[in-house]
Amino acid sequence: MPLDRHKLRWNGWGWRDHPDDLSGREEVWAWLAGELRMPALLLTPALPLEDARLPPSQLTEQDRRVLARIVGAEHFHDDLYERALHARGRSYHDLLRLRAGDLSDAPDAVVYPATTEQVLMLLAYASERGVAVIPYGGGTSVVGGVTGRNGAQRPSITIDLSRMDQVEHIDPDSLILRAQAGIYGPALEKALARHRLTLGHFPQSFEFSTLGGWIAHRGAGQQSNRTGKAEDWLVAADLATPRGLLRERAFPASAAGPRLTDLIAGSEGTFGIITSATVRVHPQAEAAAGSAWLFGDFERGAAAIREAVQNGVPAAMLRLSDPEETRFQRTFSQMGRRRSLVDRAFTVLLKARRYTAPCLLIAHFEGSEDLVRWSKTAFGRVARAHGGLPLGRTPAERWQQTRFSTPYLRDPMLDRGLGVDTLETATTWSNLSSLYRAIQIALETAIAQTAPRSGARGIVMCHLSHSYANGASLYFTFIFPRALDDEIAQWQVIKHAASQAIVANGGTISHHHGVGEDHLPWITREKGALGIDVLRAVKRTLDPKNILNPGKLIP
Amino acid sequence: MPLDRHKLRWNGWGWRDHPDDLSGREEVWAWLAGELRMPALLLTPALPLEDARLPPSQLTEQDRRVLARIVGAEHFHDDLYERALHARGRSYHDLLRLRAGDLSDAPDAVVYPATTEQVLMLLAYASERGVAVIPYGGGTSVVGGVTGRNGAQRPSITIDLSRMDQVEHIDPDSLILRAQAGIYGPALEKALARHRLTLGHFPQSFEFSTLGGWIAHRGAGQQSNRTGKAEDWLVAADLATPRGLLRERAFPASAAGPRLTDLIAGSEGTFGIITSATVRVHPQAEAAAGSAWLFGDFERGAAAIREAVQNGVPAAMLRLSDPEETRFQRTFSQMGRRRSLVDRAFTVLLKARRYTAPCLLIAHFEGSEDLVRWSKTAFGRVARAHGGLPLGRTPAERWQQTRFSTPYLRDPMLDRGLGVDTLETATTWSNLSSLYRAIQIALETAIAQTAPRSGARGIVMCHLSHSYANGASLYFTFIFPRALDDEIAQWQVIKHAASQAIVANGGTISHHHGVGEDHLPWITREKGALGIDVLRAVKRTLDPKNILNPGKLIP
Repeated sequence: MPLDRHKLRWNGWGWRDHPDDLSGREEVWAWLAGELRMPALLLTPALPLEDARLPPSQLTEQDRRVLARIVGAEHFHDDLYERALHARGRSYHDLLRLRAGDLSDAPDAVVYPATTEQVLMLLAYASERGVAVIPYGGGTSVVGGVTGRNGAQRPSITIDLSRMDQVEHIDPDSLILRAQAGIYGPALEKALARHRLTLGHFPQSFEFSTLGGWIAHRGAGQQSNRTGKAEDWLVAADLATPRGLLRERAFPASAAGPRLTDLIAGSEGTFGIITSATVRVHPQAEAAAGSAWLFGDFERGAAAIREAVQNGVPAAMLRLSDPEETRFQRTFSQMGRRRSLVDRAFTVLLKARRYTAPCLLIAHFEGSEDLVRWSKTAFGRVARAHGGLPLGRTPAERWQQTRFSTPYLRDPMLDRGLGVDTLETATTWSNLSSLYRAIQIALETAIAQTAPRSGARGIVMCHLSHSYANGASLYFTFIFPRALDDEIAQWQVIKHAASQAIVANGGTISHHHGVGEDHLPWITREKGALGIDVLRAVKRTLDPKNILNPGKLIP
Repeated sequence: MPLDRHKLRWNGWGWRDHPDDLSGREEVWAWLAGELRMPALLLTPALPLEDARLPPSQLTEQDRRVLARIVGAEHFHDDLYERALHARGRSYHDLLRLRAGDLSDAPDAVVYPATTEQVLMLLAYASERGVAVIPYGGGTSVVGGVTGRNGAQRPSITIDLSRMDQVEHIDPDSLILRAQAGIYGPALEKALARHRLTLGHFPQSFEFSTLGGWIAHRGAGQQSNRTGKAEDWLVAADLATPRGLLRERAFPASAAGPRLTDLIAGSEGTFGIITSATVRVHPQAEAAAGSAWLFGDFERGAAAIREAVQNGVPAAMLRLSDPEETRFQRTFSQMGRRRSLVDRAFTVLLKARRYTAPCLLIAHFEGSEDLVRWSKTAFGRVARAHGGLPLGRTPAERWQQTRFSTPYLRDPMLDRGLGVDTLETATTWSNLSSLYRAIQIALETAIAQTAPRSGARGIVMCHLSHSYANGASLYFTFIFPRALDDEIAQWQVIKHAASQAIVANGGTISHHHGVGEDHLPWITREKGALGIDVLRAVKRTLDPKNILNPGKLIP
């Protein structure tokens, strides 16, 4: 069963009826105000849907009739709710617009096809009519990947794939699944669980994002150290394009020329619409274990991860918070609770060890009993060699419990005059420290410069969450007091400063969020001008009328 | 120091002065004749170079002058030896042509650039003049990947990259190396060994093939279970094209759109010339261990490999020979030697176990002491569960010693009226058995049909040498009596039959040899017509005058 669209928040995260965990916790707001050096936080509620400004549809009566005939009248929608829900993704920038009632980017209609054939028909019609098409999986993009506008004042439609959620084939011997691309994370895992299998792709958006969406933006799950990113587990995909179906045969490995599937991973709906995908899956882990460690500083924690990964210690996840994130999360989770014995012992330990900038590392191991035992012990040896202090499994379990609910904290923060955004990158191990510092400084400086009040500051936190033999990703979360007179300009200044710091210091503009609209200004720097020509040539071949997801990925 | 070209055989494998291990071993020839059901083998020596037919050069005097000025006069060659050496690769088909003195496919000249800038200049000039360009690494292609002919009677030059052999950068912390693409295997490993690092890419052609060549055809080393194939260890490459340099920034992972580097892997010189590459390397293994096992049949051996790989047992190599290869290699290696005690004990064991179709598996483990110990034990447990009989480490060590010298056996066989060829594919685990049988039957049938004598047969052997969680590769070696009146037609019939069997039964036309000229008829079946359009669009963008490696990869 596809997810009920009307149960979702059109201008916020997740389920409408999810409780607000910060409701009534005034001590949290007072503490945050203090952290940001603000006298108090303001109330900044979002505009209700009925006050939002929706532009009239640009579709003709004939367009509506043809589109409705292709998908069935009950799967064609152009009412306020559907157009608003699909107007934008879920980035901080998106939410600023939506909460202000700005629906100028809403598509003119939303269609829900059920088959690849219907998608091909929709694309053929849109291509002939010059109607822009925005492919839409779960809509959780945080880089402007599904913005429904049409750029050149063309009419536009969003193709929502959530009805295309069927598992087509499972081959347990070869650990391969083939499914329609609109399937959501929980439904996919449920189907696999019947065979004691798992894809193991658990991004923070897991409940609200789809197989096709993960592939289209090269997503990473929290256990990507074990499973790889989307481009690693993708075996093949059907790509519906205005010129027909691009379908490459799927093999465990091949030397039959360049793998076109690799062009689909990261194509962000600009080459075609992923309608079905074949992916590598895994046996469900026979055993799992978590452990937590504390390091004296970020560099020592990172060195432990590097050594473990380079020596083939098979951890599913190694997540290292920097001092600021460690401090923030510890304070936040303890706030309003009585301090436990463990917490007090912990404070004593920190002093004894003279850890002035302690960094929490959470490790997670999965696999056969034997492998888990071996890898946990092997990691422990490495961690200790780098001065790591074992904290037992409780912090790891706590993290597991809340790992999908964190995004819900953003909406109440947005209601209190706060800005909350994240960004991420990756680089080599030898460059990690200098990139980390450069981004941190860029964010702190830009936030201070754009703060509504002199002396105010931001909270800039980072974790290292995906690691490779050659390097790792850095994920920044930053909270800041909003400049209410021009929130979007403030965000643009901060985003620009951070992005410049990334590309000038050897980072990629995105490790797993994608390019979308937000990272477009930096893509040529990564691909080179000739590289962009190659992407354009591919797009021209598959989408000659340039209707697919305009304004994203390709400058 | 680049390899001395004049020490190489122009019409055979490897070093000119390498001894002929089969010289004087008449018992081998008698045995082979019997195996093939032939009364005797014939003497079929190759034509000497001075008797070969070389077409006149089609280059103008000006072409010669300009090309020589770009690379330096001493690095421009159009003498018989250089043109003959670069006429073709080293496939069975290539050797048939070369041994018959057929140099109709020789390039008109060979140039040896030293820098990316020189390659760009060569390509710009050739593009303007409409001169075909054949990129040439080590020239060991076995699929017609470097055939020097020009198709449409255009002049053609071969760009030999062997002078471009400099290591440019090693980052030991990030386990990354950057080197010019013309570097040969041994030089690359020597440079890495100074830092206690290794790329670990050891194809059978290791001594005579280059970094760029491995990438261009998506090669696999014998330990690819640990290191992955070329497309897996490739981080970034500089591609010199007639339109300039394609250079994508390199990261451990990225979500900044499709990775263009993935288009370079497998491009086989049709998009541009790889002049430099950044690759993942590994710490030299602290420990290594080999072990050998015997299984009752191919399926049980394959099941053991499948289970080990799917459960994350990190072997560097798992190589399973089918009954015919096991039998052939055992007989061949014992021929003319007194049977050892071990061998006799072995025969007794086989009888006791009732192994009618015994299959040898050689396993190789590498890594930290701890990892090797753990994985060897873990693999042993899996092997025993599938009825595997431990044979100790001697067979594994024997294989290690001869692993690069086997190709030398082909030339003396070609001198005795024998045909020797190999082919390879990959498929999913669930499809492996049926694909194996289909290819085996296709080869046996085609060989019997084309044999010079009714009742004659071929020796068709197979091993499973590269395994993945989702499937594995199959590598066939086949020896057959040559139809001396039309050897090339005979080869075409056999090759066609095997290739049809592969694509009709769910295999890829190549797992690690590439497409070249030989697999061109089957590439559209893998990529789809629209996929070929995409490849053509990329080629048109980078090589608008269509000068690069004509007749390969792209129909």
